[in-house]
Amino acid sequence: MNKKVSVYRKEHFCAAHRLNNPSWSEEKNYNVFGKCNNPNYHGHNYELNVKVTGKPSPDTGFVIDLKYLSDLIKETVIEKLDHKNLNLDVPEFSDLNPTAENIAIVIFNILRDKIDQELDLQIRLYETPRNFVEYPAS
Amino acid sequence: MNKKVSVYRKEHFCAAHRLNNPSWSEEKNYNVFGKCNNPNYHGHNYELNVKVTGKPSPDTGFVIDLKYLSDLIKETVIEKLDHKNLNLDVPEFSDLNPTAENIAIVIFNILRDKIDQELDLQIRLYETPRNFVEYPAS
Amino acid sequence: MNKKVSVYRKEHFCAAHRLNNPSWSEEKNYNVFGKCNNPNYHGHNYELNVKVTGKPSPDTGFVIDLKYLSDLIKETVIEKLDHKNLNLDVPEFSDLNPTAENIAIVIFNILRDKIDQELDLQIRLYETPRNFVEYPAS
Amino acid sequence: MNKKVSVYRKEHFCAAHRLNNPSWSEEKNYNVFGKCNNPNYHGHNYELNVKVTGKPSPDTGFVIDLKYLSDLIKETVIEKLDHKNLNLDVPEFSDLNPTAENIAIVIFNILRDKIDQELDLQIRLYETPRNFVEYPAS
Amino acid sequence: MNKKVSVYRKEHFCAAHRLNNPSWSEEKNYNVFGKCNNPNYHGHNYELNVKVTGKPSPDTGFVIDLKYLSDLIKETVIEKLDHKNLNLDVPEFSDLNPTAENIAIVIFNILRDKIDQELDLQIRLYETPRNFVEYPAS
Amino acid sequence: MNKKVSVYRKEHFCAAHRLNNPSWSEEKNYNVFGKCNNPNYHGHNYELNVKVTGKPSPDTGFVIDLKYLSDLIKETVIEKLDHKNLNLDVPEFSDLNPTAENIAIVIFNILRDKIDQELDLQIRLYETPRNFVEYPAS
Repeated sequence: MNKKVSVYRKEHFCAAHRLNNPSWSEEKNYNVFGKCNNPNYHGHNYELNVKVTGKPSPDTGFVIDLKYLSDLIKETVIEKLDHKNLNLDVPEFSDLNPTAENIAIVIFNILRDKIDQELDLQIRLYETPRNFVEYPAS
Repeated sequence: MNKKVSVYRKEHFCAAHRLNNPSWSEEKNYNVFGKCNNPNYHGHNYELNVKVTGKPSPDTGFVIDLKYLSDLIKETVIEKLDHKNLNLDVPEFSDLNPTAENIAIVIFNILRDKIDQELDLQIRLYETPRNFVEYPAS
Repeated sequence: MNKKVSVYRKEHFCAAHRLNNPSWSEEKNYNVFGKCNNPNYHGHNYELNVKVTGKPSPDTGFVIDLKYLSDLIKETVIEKLDHKNLNLDVPEFSDLNPTAENIAIVIFNILRDKIDQELDLQIRLYETPRNFVEYPAS
Repeated sequence: MNKKVSVYRKEHFCAAHRLNNPSWSEEKNYNVFGKCNNPNYHGHNYELNVKVTGKPSPDTGFVIDLKYLSDLIKETVIEKLDHKNLNLDVPEFSDLNPTAENIAIVIFNILRDKIDQELDLQIRLYETPRNFVEYPAS
Repeated sequence: MNKKVSVYRKEHFCAAHRLNNPSWSEEKNYNVFGKCNNPNYHGHNYELNVKVTGKPSPDTGFVIDLKYLSDLIKETVIEKLDHKNLNLDVPEFSDLNPTAENIAIVIFNILRDKIDQELDLQIRLYETPRNFVEYPAS
Repeated sequence: MNKKVSVYRKEHFCAAHRLNNPSWSEEKNYNVFGKCNNPNYHGHNYELNVKVTGKPSPDTGFVIDLKYLSDLIKETVIEKLDHKNLNLDVPEFSDLNPTAENIAIVIFNILRDKIDQELDLQIRLYETPRNFVEYPAS
């Protein structure tokens, strides 16, 4: 068989953030971002699904060792984002609005460099159980 | 970066329905649709995931404002279907069997007209936690 | 050890219903029950948790065999309520408003007779993931 | 029948907070509260279950109208806490550490005054899917 | 309309397994598979999502009857795997490491023969709520 | 305020087991325990909720530090049970049938000794999403 398999690992972090465009007035920011613009921040429990796609190894039956993948996510992503203020504590967002879309892209870029280029990578990020995003779109 | 992001919004409605093909005999309807053919109706809590795919705006970091998307779904879909009898109260099903497949197509057609044509749209509808559908198939 | 253990079995049914007090005017019914008063009915996926409390048997380690309990719930409760219109198809509600509270009491009364009186019984019924009831209250 | 029924309504809010005891040194606060002491705050999606116990009304079959209860929670609790920084934006925590325990007690005290004293009240608050609290303990 | 719809059915089984490559030393197996190599086995609740894609029938509104699909999965997959030791009781794994990837491929191959070739088939298998796989990758 | 608060921590382990009473014949064991009696074992993902009840400390706002409780559960319970064969690898079950009831009692007894006697303790253990137990019963 030569078809590919996708494997998923789910991890968790919680963080504070606010949505704001510094090139806009306070009023415009409030009109666009509403309660998410609160200058004192609010926060979320983010649920992160990392999807890796490739052919299982004939030796192990694994596309990628999920224990390895879990440790990699924890060391490179969770350590950086968990219990943080995304706007103030995470350099990637010093100049980038921490929407769910942009957080997913930042996480993708961190992990893409660390995972074998023959394997495809996709990020799904739940900001709440009712709002979530996927990058890149499939 | 020029890759697309998908964003999802989850909403909820509950409704009664029955499955029936009026061109068939009672017996054939019962044989095909079983308990779902009960002439007095039964019902479900439907969980609706709406997926919109496009490029995030550089100004907002949003593919689409999820507050706007949530309000749009509530005004055009939930208002029409929630606490209703799909067969009797919803004109779209006067001549269309309200299977999960057909409900998803009806919801897609309602929302497709209201959302920027540059954005892709997909509907996932849970009829129960164990039975669900997606339209269009990806 | 002489302390008691509670065991739970979760089952599922879906049904149509409407809330209505026949001794009230149409207008008062609509004012009190709102959308739940729709004369054409609406419906739900009901999740049912049955809790049985007692001392585990030294022979089996079971308070009650959960396979037996599951079969009992299916034969006496699910068969009666699943894919039914509670108002029209279920005699217990011919004269009783099928609120979640009353459905839980009806289920309790059905099961109480069938389960050893030395075992305590409690019903939790989810009408939606956000609305649920418990009887008797603990 | 004269036994009581409990009814539950689930609502949601998200907020930022930090854990800190102002009478302690920075070092002691960090030793006790760890990452939760981040001076720039972090945040959570809080899931709130409100449980009300009493006898169902013979007229309605309701212990309390869950639409009324939902509106009451939204107006008095969600409006106050959602998309807020608990430490900075919510007066109740100006002098009280916003642990899950204390948030549950604050919510209980807000709602206790608004709900008929013949009805019992209990709060369950999920800070994360793995950490949650209940007040008063049953 | 000529677009396809996907329908999903979720089923459940539980099983024991161990991960092991018989051509490797005990030490290498332990280094690669860790706790999953326990010679006395461990086990999981597997949640199985079966996805079938095609055009809904104009007569029924169904892509495939989900009751038929559920029965088919139970007879051909659940009967074979539920409450079994995958390594000892299931011939397909006598010479194949029962990783989640390989279990998904085995399930796909069983069902592919039984389902109309005009319908597409995909398997998602949850080994735990945090580790899951999909075959074939989409 | 002098009322107590309950705090909960959820942890996870997976294990193999079989149900068997060694003083019975093979036939009686099969008749009583059915598929759960498979001599080659089967397995589950167990979800464990540990509930601790007491008064919050005025200094911390904690009933018990949930990070401490989580570490305690991992060191004393998860380490002992995770990725194990309960019948073969865990001495507590050498002479005790590993039903969910008995596993919950064993976990309670392990933790009871390690937690301040002024705090109440209760265990809820999910063997599957549909079968779960609580000890001691409340």
